[in-house]
Amino acid sequence: MTRAAVLGAGAWGTAFAKILAEAGSDVTMWARRESVAAAIRADRVNEASLPGVKLPERVTATSELAAALDGAGLVFLAVPSQTLRGNLADWAGHLPGDSTLVSLMKGIELGTTKRMSQVIVETARVDPDRVVVVSGPNLAPEIAAEQPAATVVAGTDPDRAQLVQQAIALPYLRPYTSDDVIGCELGGAVKNVIALAYGMANAMGMGDNTKASLITRGLAETARLGVALGADPMTFAGLAGLGDLVATCSSPLSRNRTFGEHLGRGESLEEAQRAARQTAEGVKSCLAIRDLARAHHVEMPITEQVERVCHEGVDPRVAVKLLMGREMKPE
Amino acid sequence: MTRAAVLGAGAWGTAFAKILAEAGSDVTMWARRESVAAAIRADRVNEASLPGVKLPERVTATSELAAALDGAGLVFLAVPSQTLRGNLADWAGHLPGDSTLVSLMKGIELGTTKRMSQVIVETARVDPDRVVVVSGPNLAPEIAAEQPAATVVAGTDPDRAQLVQQAIALPYLRPYTSDDVIGCELGGAVKNVIALAYGMANAMGMGDNTKASLITRGLAETARLGVALGADPMTFAGLAGLGDLVATCSSPLSRNRTFGEHLGRGESLEEAQRAARQTAEGVKSCLAIRDLARAHHVEMPITEQVERVCHEGVDPRVAVKLLMGREMKPE
Repeated sequence: MTRAAVLGAGAWGTAFAKILAEAGSDVTMWARRESVAAAIRADRVNEASLPGVKLPERVTATSELAAALDGAGLVFLAVPSQTLRGNLADWAGHLPGDSTLVSLMKGIELGTTKRMSQVIVETARVDPDRVVVVSGPNLAPEIAAEQPAATVVAGTDPDRAQLVQQAIALPYLRPYTSDDVIGCELGGAVKNVIALAYGMANAMGMGDNTKASLITRGLAETARLGVALGADPMTFAGLAGLGDLVATCSSPLSRNRTFGEHLGRGESLEEAQRAARQTAEGVKSCLAIRDLARAHHVEMPITEQVERVCHEGVDPRVAVKLLMGREMKPE
Repeated sequence: MTRAAVLGAGAWGTAFAKILAEAGSDVTMWARRESVAAAIRADRVNEASLPGVKLPERVTATSELAAALDGAGLVFLAVPSQTLRGNLADWAGHLPGDSTLVSLMKGIELGTTKRMSQVIVETARVDPDRVVVVSGPNLAPEIAAEQPAATVVAGTDPDRAQLVQQAIALPYLRPYTSDDVIGCELGGAVKNVIALAYGMANAMGMGDNTKASLITRGLAETARLGVALGADPMTFAGLAGLGDLVATCSSPLSRNRTFGEHLGRGESLEEAQRAARQTAEGVKSCLAIRDLARAHHVEMPITEQVERVCHEGVDPRVAVKLLMGREMKPE
């Protein structure tokens, strides 16, 4: 049977460990803190990240990287996007020779404007064919509760994508393969930014017509950036584009939407961070995505406004009214 | 100034009369029942269809068709889809010579599987260039409350589309023109069927991942049918496709979603009709859309299942599980 390592013990990493074990792999999770690893070993629950969800017997946990990676054919990377480069610099030497590296992360690196798969290739010095990306409408608590869902497994090497597909297929999770790594990664990253805007609009009492227009325009600007970077435009109409965007914007479980709601209620970035007890991924990625868009001369008005609210002190009411009013354009 | 007639005094017809008047037209609404017309004249409120919404002074109402159409350059048709042919047969002789006929209806005719614009052309014996369609994420109560929204005005004659665009542009409503009449009409009609499925899934406690997949697949089957009928695939990624679908599925104000929820709670079609005090548009259109899909050899699994639940007594739990489980496919 396959041995799989899941590096990172957040909600999605933990839910993924459950998926992999249920689909037949022996799974070792790596947690940064030994206390988290020890609690998972002792109770089979990661109370901090995914409370109340019992993990299968096939899941174990460690804070020692070499032990987590030992013999793993599939290595799932589920650390915060902006920490990936630093982590991989330490880890690269321990990655098993021909292992497939699977990104579960949804972000764009600040400063370099690189996608997660690019950071992996660069930092772990592996062939791009060894990297696979998983992205789709996959709110971790719902997957952990075994609500039916589908996801996209994208890789340039169809054999490796299929290997990952088989390793995560379950009655409640249907993975579909794709060769559009760029489109899947952008869909996953930009949707966090659009969900911030959606949360702001929601907290401001905007109606469903307005919010549906925001989703429509958000997907349009994601697709524009994607096409400029070489993605297949059809990816954005699928599960990793539209699907993920709608799930994230619709769900009160979404961290980015919730964070946007804090901002929309007039809280400062610091107040929202305190209330949410963390920074939403989109708050960081919006800077990188805006830079990426500008570098490729792509107009992303929603991303621009989210960046201004998050990092330039612009009042979200001014930003959302600007978006919903005069500047509204057809895609 | 323009004179406009709005034929039909349902929620959308009434909200549209308000829009037209606020944008500068003198508007005469036609209501089938004189009591409704008299109440609008007396109170400037259509209590049955759009309670509590004050209509501008420029709106008047009549139950006499000739009076409503007299001098109208723009004629807005807002009657139930399945009554359009019967109504127009009576009305055709009264339509002012060069008037632009604007469909506000979202349905496909039973039996003939024709779109509303086709029924207008056929029954009123007018050139297709005289017909314009308005469709988008436009829940009537929200537009009446002046929540910001956008919509699509589609016509094969750009001058007429622009005329309608100008007649409805307001600070809270931004109309965009398009030449894709087929795509706009299909987006509006099929979304009612998908919203029925969404309502069923919602009432059955499905999570946001599952419901987002349903929206994604629903848009995919809509686009497949559209392309087979000659629509522009990009229309479905826009306001009249994705936008309208998301608004309708998200909103508790949506009749089709609400009707689907009744069915999803195990009520029969008759019980749901009693509870909703009307039949949702999608319940009728799903038959016509299924026939249209079969005639063009297009797979529409969601539409097929909705039709079975509505008209063949299939248990919605069985239908939704079938959709969400084994049959889930990528688009």
